[in-house]
Amino acid sequence: MTDKTANTMWGGRFAAGPDAIMEAINASIGFDQRMAAQDIAGSRAHAAMLGAVGIITTSDAETIREGLLTVLSEIEAGTFEFSTALEDIHMNVEARLKEVIGEPAGRLHTGRSRNDQVATDFKLWVRDQLDAAEAGLLALIDALLAQAEAGADWVMPGFTHLQTAQPVTWGHHMMAYVEMLGRDLSRVRDARARMNECPLGAAALAGTSFPIDREMTAQALGFDRPAANSLDAVSDRDFALEFLGVASICAMHLSRFAEELVIWSSAQFRFVTLSDRFSTGSSIMPQKKNPDAAELIRAKVGRIMGANVGLMMVMKGLPLAYSKDMQEDKEQVFDAADNWMLALAAMEGMVRDMTANRESLAAAAGAGFSTATDLADWLVRVLGMPFRDAHHVTGSLVAMAEAKGCDLPDLSLADMQSVHSDITDAVFDVLGVQNSVNSRMSYGGTAPAQVRAQVKRWREVLK
Amino acid sequence: MTDKTANTMWGGRFAAGPDAIMEAINASIGFDQRMAAQDIAGSRAHAAMLGAVGIITTSDAETIREGLLTVLSEIEAGTFEFSTALEDIHMNVEARLKEVIGEPAGRLHTGRSRNDQVATDFKLWVRDQLDAAEAGLLALIDALLAQAEAGADWVMPGFTHLQTAQPVTWGHHMMAYVEMLGRDLSRVRDARARMNECPLGAAALAGTSFPIDREMTAQALGFDRPAANSLDAVSDRDFALEFLGVASICAMHLSRFAEELVIWSSAQFRFVTLSDRFSTGSSIMPQKKNPDAAELIRAKVGRIMGANVGLMMVMKGLPLAYSKDMQEDKEQVFDAADNWMLALAAMEGMVRDMTANRESLAAAAGAGFSTATDLADWLVRVLGMPFRDAHHVTGSLVAMAEAKGCDLPDLSLADMQSVHSDITDAVFDVLGVQNSVNSRMSYGGTAPAQVRAQVKRWREVLK
Amino acid sequence: MTDKTANTMWGGRFAAGPDAIMEAINASIGFDQRMAAQDIAGSRAHAAMLGAVGIITTSDAETIREGLLTVLSEIEAGTFEFSTALEDIHMNVEARLKEVIGEPAGRLHTGRSRNDQVATDFKLWVRDQLDAAEAGLLALIDALLAQAEAGADWVMPGFTHLQTAQPVTWGHHMMAYVEMLGRDLSRVRDARARMNECPLGAAALAGTSFPIDREMTAQALGFDRPAANSLDAVSDRDFALEFLGVASICAMHLSRFAEELVIWSSAQFRFVTLSDRFSTGSSIMPQKKNPDAAELIRAKVGRIMGANVGLMMVMKGLPLAYSKDMQEDKEQVFDAADNWMLALAAMEGMVRDMTANRESLAAAAGAGFSTATDLADWLVRVLGMPFRDAHHVTGSLVAMAEAKGCDLPDLSLADMQSVHSDITDAVFDVLGVQNSVNSRMSYGGTAPAQVRAQVKRWREVLK
Amino acid sequence: MTDKTANTMWGGRFAAGPDAIMEAINASIGFDQRMAAQDIAGSRAHAAMLGAVGIITTSDAETIREGLLTVLSEIEAGTFEFSTALEDIHMNVEARLKEVIGEPAGRLHTGRSRNDQVATDFKLWVRDQLDAAEAGLLALIDALLAQAEAGADWVMPGFTHLQTAQPVTWGHHMMAYVEMLGRDLSRVRDARARMNECPLGAAALAGTSFPIDREMTAQALGFDRPAANSLDAVSDRDFALEFLGVASICAMHLSRFAEELVIWSSAQFRFVTLSDRFSTGSSIMPQKKNPDAAELIRAKVGRIMGANVGLMMVMKGLPLAYSKDMQEDKEQVFDAADNWMLALAAMEGMVRDMTANRESLAAAAGAGFSTATDLADWLVRVLGMPFRDAHHVTGSLVAMAEAKGCDLPDLSLADMQSVHSDITDAVFDVLGVQNSVNSRMSYGGTAPAQVRAQVKRWREVLK
Repeated sequence: MTDKTANTMWGGRFAAGPDAIMEAINASIGFDQRMAAQDIAGSRAHAAMLGAVGIITTSDAETIREGLLTVLSEIEAGTFEFSTALEDIHMNVEARLKEVIGEPAGRLHTGRSRNDQVATDFKLWVRDQLDAAEAGLLALIDALLAQAEAGADWVMPGFTHLQTAQPVTWGHHMMAYVEMLGRDLSRVRDARARMNECPLGAAALAGTSFPIDREMTAQALGFDRPAANSLDAVSDRDFALEFLGVASICAMHLSRFAEELVIWSSAQFRFVTLSDRFSTGSSIMPQKKNPDAAELIRAKVGRIMGANVGLMMVMKGLPLAYSKDMQEDKEQVFDAADNWMLALAAMEGMVRDMTANRESLAAAAGAGFSTATDLADWLVRVLGMPFRDAHHVTGSLVAMAEAKGCDLPDLSLADMQSVHSDITDAVFDVLGVQNSVNSRMSYGGTAPAQVRAQVKRWREVLK
Repeated sequence: MTDKTANTMWGGRFAAGPDAIMEAINASIGFDQRMAAQDIAGSRAHAAMLGAVGIITTSDAETIREGLLTVLSEIEAGTFEFSTALEDIHMNVEARLKEVIGEPAGRLHTGRSRNDQVATDFKLWVRDQLDAAEAGLLALIDALLAQAEAGADWVMPGFTHLQTAQPVTWGHHMMAYVEMLGRDLSRVRDARARMNECPLGAAALAGTSFPIDREMTAQALGFDRPAANSLDAVSDRDFALEFLGVASICAMHLSRFAEELVIWSSAQFRFVTLSDRFSTGSSIMPQKKNPDAAELIRAKVGRIMGANVGLMMVMKGLPLAYSKDMQEDKEQVFDAADNWMLALAAMEGMVRDMTANRESLAAAAGAGFSTATDLADWLVRVLGMPFRDAHHVTGSLVAMAEAKGCDLPDLSLADMQSVHSDITDAVFDVLGVQNSVNSRMSYGGTAPAQVRAQVKRWREVLK
Repeated sequence: MTDKTANTMWGGRFAAGPDAIMEAINASIGFDQRMAAQDIAGSRAHAAMLGAVGIITTSDAETIREGLLTVLSEIEAGTFEFSTALEDIHMNVEARLKEVIGEPAGRLHTGRSRNDQVATDFKLWVRDQLDAAEAGLLALIDALLAQAEAGADWVMPGFTHLQTAQPVTWGHHMMAYVEMLGRDLSRVRDARARMNECPLGAAALAGTSFPIDREMTAQALGFDRPAANSLDAVSDRDFALEFLGVASICAMHLSRFAEELVIWSSAQFRFVTLSDRFSTGSSIMPQKKNPDAAELIRAKVGRIMGANVGLMMVMKGLPLAYSKDMQEDKEQVFDAADNWMLALAAMEGMVRDMTANRESLAAAAGAGFSTATDLADWLVRVLGMPFRDAHHVTGSLVAMAEAKGCDLPDLSLADMQSVHSDITDAVFDVLGVQNSVNSRMSYGGTAPAQVRAQVKRWREVLK
Repeated sequence: MTDKTANTMWGGRFAAGPDAIMEAINASIGFDQRMAAQDIAGSRAHAAMLGAVGIITTSDAETIREGLLTVLSEIEAGTFEFSTALEDIHMNVEARLKEVIGEPAGRLHTGRSRNDQVATDFKLWVRDQLDAAEAGLLALIDALLAQAEAGADWVMPGFTHLQTAQPVTWGHHMMAYVEMLGRDLSRVRDARARMNECPLGAAALAGTSFPIDREMTAQALGFDRPAANSLDAVSDRDFALEFLGVASICAMHLSRFAEELVIWSSAQFRFVTLSDRFSTGSSIMPQKKNPDAAELIRAKVGRIMGANVGLMMVMKGLPLAYSKDMQEDKEQVFDAADNWMLALAAMEGMVRDMTANRESLAAAAGAGFSTATDLADWLVRVLGMPFRDAHHVTGSLVAMAEAKGCDLPDLSLADMQSVHSDITDAVFDVLGVQNSVNSRMSYGGTAPAQVRAQVKRWREVLK
């Protein structure tokens, strides 16, 4: 796995080569090769700038830039041989560049250091992931909007404490997740804007005496500006932590929806049918159809939040500037990003494929005294009772219905009047489930018209 | 601690009163009384709106609003008797309101629920904390800018791996933290803008059939708009999680600075002297002067990130809408907020009071071959060597100096030329510490002029 | 809240008193007064030892020990005035002791330091909590054994992926939690044994030149032995971390059971009825009966694991010996311990009070092709088919039943034989739910006889 | 990456094959192939048992067992082709077994399920890691004992708050870590004993009607006994969580030592010299010798505790029995285990190779009034002063020395007597650093004789 000779990039001072354990704990090439494209993009921008300002010749700059493309094509083709002895992606690329173009390769590392180089590479990688997350969020929101529009007036039970509370609409429930994912989207965009400052040119920690043009490299790499303090630029991993924080909250949202899908798929609920594409069977129980994708999505928040904790703990108490501890930033962020993207895609697929069981939803919506609040509100609105009193009257009627083994609409007017004599026949209008949801016309309420208005608003926002 | 009779607000249906354990685990009044002012502000806005749209009489609305002020004054005066049997701040306030104003009190809870009420209260509370954090951050940044300006040209060692790397300036080091705290500030503002949607009027989960005006209550409470989905509005704790995420990253920054202050205060470093006001002594070792405040600040990130993990775990996998699990949101956020504010204030005090020991800093800056990079850069710039070759030549010169027990500037020109014959006398210009920092004029570099430019920029940004 | 004069215990060296912020962040008396009894017990043991070995006179020792009892009685009576200026419980007690007994009080702090004192106090406090947890676990296990015994043969659906998998028994399900809590109990006992080494006498960090007898104080305080390294003794918080780790796993177990209780209490499942004592109502929906206690218990794992993360992060990277960061150990452990004990007690109460709805359980147990595995096993056992083939045959029969809208026992023999001609009438014996559970006689299986055997075994283990 | 045909193991019931996203999120073969040896060991034990009790023929059992050895050899040789469509290691192995031996392969999965199979595989894997951790801990302790023995009487400063507190010995400091690692070792052993119950035979969740012999398989796989409840056996991941908890505390210990090594390696401290084998250079600063291994070890606690949080969050609130969420247990545990082992090995290597700089340590030990406590203790012991008074006198003498710019032993007797007239010449005996450490003979104290006694005790304990 390793040759035992001294490292040829920085090892002149060392008598002995690092031994196998050291190499195993120290080398990052096993994982940071994932940033090869970013590393080469950064080096190409740096070389162009070195040439433009005259630190190296334009001819050398061009040779370097061409050579880097060759190296990139080797990596993309899978023919590049990564060497653990060369520690990391930066030195692997540079060493190969030297083989390809010879002497000018040694001029590339002027006015920079691996410290600003790795910060730049990693930022570019994380930025790409934020863009991917944005796309994944938009696709999932789109799938939810389709469900919401189709089922804007399908009734279902709204739960609190997993107890039937009041009837709501399927569309309204879907739109609750649109709101959550909308906030996630907003966090993704804020994080991207905040992180978009270029570390390149901070050099090891102090900046450089070469007359580099940091605006030029920043612009070439799509950054808004160069980072304003070189010590901070090489010490900062806020962008990775904020990425993990944003991902964690989003994964938490997905875990809630996944939990609902698992519960709704149970034989006892039967609220939804997941497609075969997102279900699996059992090796021992032939009748099973398991919501595996939902369960796996539910679990992802653990993994992502675990990475968040891990990196926060790594950064805790580190003095400035770069410390090697910070090399522990990548694998966890890679893993979290992969799993976040996968969870978004799988959830989108499930949402597009799933079928709401309208009959089960409607039957459940009407059971369990779900319109008791409507009754209480009627007592307030029509009879002018204070809400607290209306609440007590309703409680007595619910108790009566429960004792009779029926639901509220099944009570007779006489039953009603035995509890409160002013109740009239008109009360039965509000005890119907569809009437109940139609009546909740307050802004953001569950009425189908409100749901459709929100679908429309979101479609415009996202246009 | 509790009376055993059934709860009078919702208890009509229950034969038995909750027993002591249930009350202990269920009641939140022990901690949510911290939100009394927010609760009453929300209720006053709600009552005004109910009156304005005619759901209750304007006379009742006014009576309720006045009565609530009376209750608030009792709470502020410390004469209010909180009751555990009344569970939470909402019911404590409402029960007392009924004693104070009688029947109209029962009309306050029309068109709302405790679910939207607590979401509103808690959001208002968290929003206040974000404002407090902004103030704390600005004060701390101000203290750092003062240090940076005073010491824009004081040299000190810049470290990587806690090894002397290159000379930097005190001002530059201070400004690194200004950048970090500036990002914190930006996160605080983004979080505040994102959370500023009003849950009030979402009612239990479905909205309401009363013709409430949610724009009006939102505006009265300083929100930008009402929350757009009632299910989401009562189920959402993103604002608390984002608060904890922002606080965690900031606390991590503080832990890094605190670590540096602890190390810098050691007898071995002697880089800074902390004021007596932020140090303590020992009960057994009379000579000790301990950087306790710095150590306590260093620890706060644990507590705050712990709260972040805690609340994320609470929210994981909760189906919509409100579940009682969500009551576990407050104590951890309260504790995190208190400790964040305390850490910001203590750090500000320490920074304002601390004295940089310029002689120690300067002596350390010059030791340890700290200008080796300057030498390498000189070889590139003046002799046109590729950087990688210059790096090797410099390594040999460092090894020579180390063998002779001297530093780089103490080598003779002959020594130098024995390694590379083209080296000239001019090289000694770049081996001086002050020259070194002055030369790092790249944007964001450690040169005093760059530091002063950044101080100026920040002063304008924050104006 | 504070006087501004210099602290009188260690302040001689300081010109200025700590200011308000410093006092707020530094003082621990606001929370460490919870360890008053432990602090006084430790001091009494220390004084007795100082007297016994002749470091102080036996008369002074006795005066100190009596005076400490007086202080303790003041604290217990609530008449003790805690002073923030005196920072912590140790100095509060000692200062009051001086007022009570005069000069000998100054001799108590011989051969010890606050560093070993606080480690001892906190260990004693945590040890008490482990004992309380043991009692709570035993009580909860007892409640589960009662449920398991009563329902050893009640059938219910066993779920995987929340899909009906195979019939199991109520008793078997209860016993699964007994196994989990039994491991918790074992972890509690291991943690207690491991932590039971006495830090007292480690002094500040180096031990002492006074001829103290550490065996004597260790024994007096119920420790197995003195801690063997004084640096470690004052730097160690493993006992608190292990406490939090043990508590976290236990709280996770409780969260799983709580989740089941919430789901089982839903209108869709109706598997259990929780008692009114552990349920609450709604302020707006009169018909609700919410499983609040279960939900709150479900949430506790977040809080406790949050504390675990918090303290781990505090301890990360701390050099030896005592650092003030370690003062952040207590509040989180206090909070975690309180909530763990509360969760155990509330769960015990819920389990004792809850009623399994046998009819619902039995009906659900028989639905959903739950005996498909029994059919497959019959094909293997009786017809000698390889299991994989039997699995496919069973899958076809399930598909046939699903298409016909019936369950497996409702298929005719002809139906069966159309899929596999060797099937005989005898197959119908294994398709009954009660037969199914009775047949699972493998060790640890769900058969009632196995459940009863496990109840008996646990009763003996715990005797 | 995948074929789109229906899965052939359980897919008969599904019309459509799982699509690419589902396969990506669902398949575990990418990582669970690490458990191939454990999986095959478990299957071989199961097959032997099935044969022994007559569920399959002994001939089939032997054929299966031989075939599994063939499959294992293919995996070990790297010639096995893992298939994502076959999802996991269990089905990959079984499918290949069928190719190798034909029909009897279909009889292997009798009386078991993938649920108990994966629990068994993973337990065996974790158990192996606990054994590896034990070996790593013993090797590291051995390295520390060697350092402690060599430097039992080398003086160095003992720190609290990173301020010089009292002189201690190098050996004493090393032995503090031996105590910590000794507790880790004890936790490893407790965890191993607790987890050592065999899930195999729990089948899917309910046990089985086949007359299996669980004692036999448990014994064959080195377990102490079969797990006593089949529901728990397939739902339990305590063993993984306890593994992560134990690893986290140990990694925290390593982070503390690593922090010390980083600080001690700084130019300002120069307490130790790390070997070249565990240091690296800089790509830009030729003079640097960075303690990379120490920094990387310091970071590992984040990663491991992150995994702990992650898995705890995955398990939170999961109903019984197996849910697919639990598949998220492995990658994090694999990563944590790899990094724990690496950290132990790297720390052992660093400790064996590092050189204490005795002169720097001794010089630092004597500076900073480090024997002030010895002076205070002398006043108590010889003059009979109460400790609190002695503390004040000492404080005044330290202040006097500080004002004169000298250390305590440099004060004249007249100086001393000007603060307290009873002080005699004898006091100077206790102000020497070597005398100070020699005097701390209390059990566990820093005196060389105590250190040597502890080294001896540990050598015997570990023998």
